[in-house]
Amino acid sequence: MSFLEKYRSAADSRKSLVCVGLDPDPERLPDHLRGTADPVSSFLTEVVAATCDLVCAYKPNFAFFGAMGVAGWRRLEDVLSAIPGSTPVVLDFKANDIGNSARRYAQMAYEALGVDAVTVNPLMGSDSVAPFLEYPDGCAFLLCLTSNPGSADFQRLSTQDGPLYQHVARKALEWSRTGPCGLVVGATHARELATVRRIAPGLPFLVPGVGAQMGDPGEVVRCGSDRNGGGLLVNVSRSVLYASSGRDFAGAARCAAESLRAKLERERASSLSP
Amino acid sequence: MSFLEKYRSAADSRKSLVCVGLDPDPERLPDHLRGTADPVSSFLTEVVAATCDLVCAYKPNFAFFGAMGVAGWRRLEDVLSAIPGSTPVVLDFKANDIGNSARRYAQMAYEALGVDAVTVNPLMGSDSVAPFLEYPDGCAFLLCLTSNPGSADFQRLSTQDGPLYQHVARKALEWSRTGPCGLVVGATHARELATVRRIAPGLPFLVPGVGAQMGDPGEVVRCGSDRNGGGLLVNVSRSVLYASSGRDFAGAARCAAESLRAKLERERASSLSP
Repeated sequence: MSFLEKYRSAADSRKSLVCVGLDPDPERLPDHLRGTADPVSSFLTEVVAATCDLVCAYKPNFAFFGAMGVAGWRRLEDVLSAIPGSTPVVLDFKANDIGNSARRYAQMAYEALGVDAVTVNPLMGSDSVAPFLEYPDGCAFLLCLTSNPGSADFQRLSTQDGPLYQHVARKALEWSRTGPCGLVVGATHARELATVRRIAPGLPFLVPGVGAQMGDPGEVVRCGSDRNGGGLLVNVSRSVLYASSGRDFAGAARCAAESLRAKLERERASSLSP
Repeated sequence: MSFLEKYRSAADSRKSLVCVGLDPDPERLPDHLRGTADPVSSFLTEVVAATCDLVCAYKPNFAFFGAMGVAGWRRLEDVLSAIPGSTPVVLDFKANDIGNSARRYAQMAYEALGVDAVTVNPLMGSDSVAPFLEYPDGCAFLLCLTSNPGSADFQRLSTQDGPLYQHVARKALEWSRTGPCGLVVGATHARELATVRRIAPGLPFLVPGVGAQMGDPGEVVRCGSDRNGGGLLVNVSRSVLYASSGRDFAGAARCAAESLRAKLERERASSLSP
């Protein structure tokens, strides 16, 4: 099944636009896990088990695994194998390279790790994105307007074709005729999210920034959803993973994910009602 | 010793601006290595042994290792441990993320892998680059104008502050007051290399694109070197690694690296002569 089919099936059947980001921070794990053989894998496996009927996708961030060295790679494999096959996985990687090397990054994501989609930095242009589009069942989420303050440095620059992030959105639309792609737009930029949705009405958007970064979930749905009230993966990481540092961490993660799911669904219901 | 000290010491003592890119392609390994326990590690270790007195740096590209899964991570560690401590290593990674996650990428490069420098995609702006600048002995090489055709899509866009790549160069100059950084400028853009050198007279430039990508080594030195005739890491990967597919591969790699070294030195000598 392709990424898009998996995503739509999970989002529809679970009535959820919630994507849970898996960013394991060894310093924030619950104390009682510290004695176990592999606290990181235990932690993530329990979070997945507690949330997998509530989410439309998971998004492990490679940075957090890579920082742990080769053990991190194993832990990434562990958590990938703990995620039910019905739930798509977006590898948050944000790298890219010239065509010859970008092909290897695509292999890393889709073949070595076997994920369903991957975030890609578009700065190096068409031939750097093309190898990702050769996987018809995948999806390359191109960084368009990221949720962080530094997004103003380059992504908002005025160019001959409007702000850079809008140019990226137009290119993504063009490239989506070749293979599946989507866009990353931060929840912290609701107005721009609406603009990007007008440019690319049918592309899936990965929207980080609603938890610790304070983006508003209601605005994300109002500004970012497609005409069917979907097309969104609203990502939350820290505020779900670290909802509690006690023995109840998995239950607390579930409550935090459910609370976001319900907020998004309320907004979706009211925005679709006539 | 910091990256810059290591680089200058290696470049001066070996009279070399050559950086050898370590991009292992399992399909291009010499046939006679295929039966060995780990052909990739054997191959890279021999290439390093045959070239390490001729180069100012090595640049392993993470994409090629990542594509091999967890075994690739081990092979990256193998080759890193085979590189003499006097030769700096630039991890070619080209990723980045919001500050919280970029810190993890910096940890991956400088702590988990223990390299001396890393290539960084600057698209996400100041807070995404800042964690890399916190390593005073490292160096963050920011993608400025890459060697591939797709660099025209975004990097050459006219902005309110001139072409995007020039804006990146100015930002790198500004950020270099906080911590060590350099720029990646492709050898395939000689004229722009001169422009970037005028913008950032003192920053080190990593210049890929002279081998398989056909950039001219003489032009790179004429257009890209700093006022001391240095400040360049001229990268070559495929045309050194795969100079021969026979039993003489390591000797052929040495010859190819030496040929580039000599070309660069001739140009450097003539450009510094009064």
